[in-house]
Amino acid sequence: MSKEIERKFLIVNTSFKKEAIKSYKIAQGFLSTVPERTVRIRIQDNQGFITIKGIGNKTGTTRFEWEKEIDINEANSLLAICEPSIIEKIRYIIPTNNQLFFEVDEFLGLNNGLIIAEIELPSEDADFNKPYWLGKEVTGKASYYNSMLTKKPFTKW
Amino acid sequence: MSKEIERKFLIVNTSFKKEAIKSYKIAQGFLSTVPERTVRIRIQDNQGFITIKGIGNKTGTTRFEWEKEIDINEANSLLAICEPSIIEKIRYIIPTNNQLFFEVDEFLGLNNGLIIAEIELPSEDADFNKPYWLGKEVTGKASYYNSMLTKKPFTKW
Repeated sequence: MSKEIERKFLIVNTSFKKEAIKSYKIAQGFLSTVPERTVRIRIQDNQGFITIKGIGNKTGTTRFEWEKEIDINEANSLLAICEPSIIEKIRYIIPTNNQLFFEVDEFLGLNNGLIIAEIELPSEDADFNKPYWLGKEVTGKASYYNSMLTKKPFTKW
Repeated sequence: MSKEIERKFLIVNTSFKKEAIKSYKIAQGFLSTVPERTVRIRIQDNQGFITIKGIGNKTGTTRFEWEKEIDINEANSLLAICEPSIIEKIRYIIPTNNQLFFEVDEFLGLNNGLIIAEIELPSEDADFNKPYWLGKEVTGKASYYNSMLTKKPFTKW
C-alpha cells in the first residue's frame, strides 16, 4: 500500500532504447477502468500481479496504489475475464540521476505508435534529469492512462 | 481459483439461528459490480479478503471465482475506495447433511430485513437437505447479488 507519485512524458525520438539496462514484455488488462478504483491484472516476465489504484490528486501526480504478486496461471485466468482489450507493450528501464529510473513503454497492437516515459518520484517536487529524448509532459491526462487506452486505443485517436 | 457452485434461497422464518454453530459480522464493498468481473473487498472476523468473480452460467449456479486473503489494514484502505455503499451483515453457519453448510446472511443497514441462505455444492446436481426454514429459491437472480445490493439496497425495493 502506498501513494504513487509519478510523472509521465511523451518522447521525441527512440534513442532512449540505447540507454535501457533492461526490457521485457507486458500484457495487462483491467477488471475496472473506473478512475476512482482501477483494478489491473498484469503479466510481466513470468510474474503475475494485481494492482488497484485510486483516483489521482488535482495535478494527477499522486495516486493511491496497492499491488500484490499472484500466481502466473491465476493471472492468466483473470486476464481472460478482463475488459476488452488487453494492452501489450515493451517496457524499457532507463536509469537517470539519484537512483531514479524511467520506465518507457512502447505500446503494441491497437496502441502501436504510442511511447510513454514514466518516472516514479520520492516526492511531488523531487528533481530529476530530463534526458534529451524526453518530450511533452502528459501527467494526469486521462487519455494516456492505460485504463483509457483499453477503451480508446491510440490508433483510433 | 475455482468454479463456485452455489444455490441461494430466501428464508421463511428466523429459527435457523438456533441451528447456527458460528456467526460473525461481515463488511464488504465492491471495486467493480460489473457482472462479468466483480471485485469484492471483504472484512470478516479480523481477516481481509479480495474476491473476483466472473459471470455465471445460464442457471446462475456456477461462477468463476478467485480469492486471496489480504492484510486487514490493506483491506480497510481498499474498502475506503469501494463503490458506495458498503454492505454489512451477520453470517450464520449452519451444518446440513453430507458435510455441507448453509451460510445465512442477515443484512443490516440499507438492506435491513433481507435474509439469504446460500449453500455451496460439490456439483450442480448435488442433493442436500432442505430445512423447514428454507424458502423460495433465488439462485441467479441479479437483484439478490451483493454487488447489486450496494446499488439498489433492499429497503429501496
